[in-house]
Amino acid sequence: MSDAAADKTPTIAVIGGDGIGPEVVAEGLKVLDATVGGSAFSYVHYDLGAERWQRTGEVLPESVLEELTGVDAIILGAVGAAPGSKAIPSGLLERGLLLKLRFAFDHYVNLRPSKLYPGVVTPLSDAIVERGPIDFVVVREGTEGLYCGVGGSMQTGTPFEVANEVSVNTARGVERVVRDAFERAMRRRKKVTLVHKHNVLVNAGGLWNRIFQAVAAEFPEVSNDYLHVDATMIMLVQDPQRFDVIVTDNLFGDIVTDLAAAVTGGIGLAASANINPTGAFPSMFEPVHGSAPDIAGQGIADPTATISSMALLLDHLGRREDAARIESAVDADVAARGSDRRTTSQVGDAIAARV
Amino acid sequence: MSDAAADKTPTIAVIGGDGIGPEVVAEGLKVLDATVGGSAFSYVHYDLGAERWQRTGEVLPESVLEELTGVDAIILGAVGAAPGSKAIPSGLLERGLLLKLRFAFDHYVNLRPSKLYPGVVTPLSDAIVERGPIDFVVVREGTEGLYCGVGGSMQTGTPFEVANEVSVNTARGVERVVRDAFERAMRRRKKVTLVHKHNVLVNAGGLWNRIFQAVAAEFPEVSNDYLHVDATMIMLVQDPQRFDVIVTDNLFGDIVTDLAAAVTGGIGLAASANINPTGAFPSMFEPVHGSAPDIAGQGIADPTATISSMALLLDHLGRREDAARIESAVDADVAARGSDRRTTSQVGDAIAARV
Ligand SMILES: CC(C)[C@H](C(=O)O)[C@@H](O)C(=O)O
Ligand SMILES: CC(C)[C@H](C(=O)O)[C@@H](O)C(=O)O
Repeated sequence: MSDAAADKTPTIAVIGGDGIGPEVVAEGLKVLDATVGGSAFSYVHYDLGAERWQRTGEVLPESVLEELTGVDAIILGAVGAAPGSKAIPSGLLERGLLLKLRFAFDHYVNLRPSKLYPGVVTPLSDAIVERGPIDFVVVREGTEGLYCGVGGSMQTGTPFEVANEVSVNTARGVERVVRDAFERAMRRRKKVTLVHKHNVLVNAGGLWNRIFQAVAAEFPEVSNDYLHVDATMIMLVQDPQRFDVIVTDNLFGDIVTDLAAAVTGGIGLAASANINPTGAFPSMFEPVHGSAPDIAGQGIADPTATISSMALLLDHLGRREDAARIESAVDADVAARGSDRRTTSQVGDAIAARV
Repeated sequence: MSDAAADKTPTIAVIGGDGIGPEVVAEGLKVLDATVGGSAFSYVHYDLGAERWQRTGEVLPESVLEELTGVDAIILGAVGAAPGSKAIPSGLLERGLLLKLRFAFDHYVNLRPSKLYPGVVTPLSDAIVERGPIDFVVVREGTEGLYCGVGGSMQTGTPFEVANEVSVNTARGVERVVRDAFERAMRRRKKVTLVHKHNVLVNAGGLWNRIFQAVAAEFPEVSNDYLHVDATMIMLVQDPQRFDVIVTDNLFGDIVTDLAAAVTGGIGLAASANINPTGAFPSMFEPVHGSAPDIAGQGIADPTATISSMALLLDHLGRREDAARIESAVDADVAARGSDRRTTSQVGDAIAARV
């Protein structure tokens, strides 16, 4: 039994990461403390990311992975070097740390809510926005598909190179995430949309389709439909109100959720949770955005996405009312935002003051 | 030597296809005739698509494929049954006809221009639109990637099913399309953006990256940058003006071009060309949109995308001035559009009258 379980104070691992990661995580913890008190959780900080790799050559030591296995939840800021950076090989941190955790802890539900708060600037026209509230959630599969790391290349670096990536999809993997989406829909507006590309990806698409239909039949109260991923792009900008719960694979989910975040006011606001609903492993809470090296260190990153992710964390730990307090505080803060730019810590202070 | 070459009248194969396909193609031919005269081309109509399959069980008979090999260009409306239709197995027409032609005729440049015409309704806010003209082109790879049809499933239909899709990328395939993108950029605003996801898809992404850098070095006048596909979603709605030429793989190109079409006024306007730049096989011209079974037969589909595709066809056949006449006619028609809904043939008549 871990220490955390023995003294009943849940342990939360905190990985600030790279770029703006540590800056936004600090504000997340500030709001968490303001909500549940400074001694509700015991925090253990882990120094992982680009900087550690450059110093020690380590991405995620086995011993750290083992320690993390025993915690009650993980908060992650962001990892990753600037695109094109020569300092760190492309994908090293993403695959060695972020994706490693998602896979090791079997985070098969990557949950990404999208809500357009009143008053928030969106790239969408008034005509679209005025049609009604935009409020949906993407249930992105987190442990399979093109993210599985199966693939390789031959004759690499020659004019004869062949490079393959394999999307692996299993009936069990698809079924559990589709079921989660339908269960969530029961607590929402009772509609699930499957997003895929089954007219081209006939094998994976066939599997997703068949399982989606089978699970849908168990939820007669929930309406369901299907959209190709390309058509989904159009719907997300022309009629985002049509969505309640979207369920989709790992890569389509990555693409769909960035667009969803953009149309609902930007990734500065987009929260996410990497959930293992069985509780067998700790779940992980992180903003959708990346490490944004271009604005790191200036204290200007928007910590709202991380703060909203703290609500998802509290909800996951069974503290529904505390979660709702953070949500309301974020709602109120966002609604009151003017055109003045606030610093990262000013936003954290303002939301902490409201919880 | 084919008959077409012998009598010097280029032969154009016309595949109306399903749903609104034949309706919009009729208007494309109307405008083509108005531009170059009724006898400049000899048209051969092919009855292919869902209806033919239902009648005869044939998708694309070998003899037809052979005939098509000899023509000078192909015009395609749209193929595909309604999503979820039980009448036709998912993907049968897409893979047996549309993709079959793209692959058989080695259409490695799938060219999709996106331009926001003045006055066109867009889902983007005024603040975004007022920033400047939106005018870019996506060079989508058309013969590799996840579209190659490599993959399969085992234990199909059981709880133990595993379904795989393989993205195959070759140095030759990537190099030729990247080079095409840089050559196009030289005739435009001299900027190429590579869109991929190399932090996750390290094999394919590595190949694309390396080749992109190598070709970029041959075009010192062309600036270049890289965006992950998820970040591209954000940029397309928040800052579409930043793009000149985008080059990307087959699946990302599918996704990016539907969003690009949506932000520039909808897929009713989006033209496309499937080009074999070597001339070894006929190129194919088609609107980006699908067969839209929901509005088929009502005479209300917008034929503009097909008409603009005719400009791409004339350009490809070396008739630059004729192509420009269609482009100007479309520009003028679109700019003059009010809120009155016109029928499919009224739009065709109006543009034909302007060429
Ligand atoms: C950093 C990257 C590996 C990651 C992903 O692709 O999943 C990110 O884009 C996300 O959406 O969480
Ligand atoms: C119909 C479908 C196979 C096709 C594709 O995915 O390429 C279409 O979406 C397109 O973009 O031309």
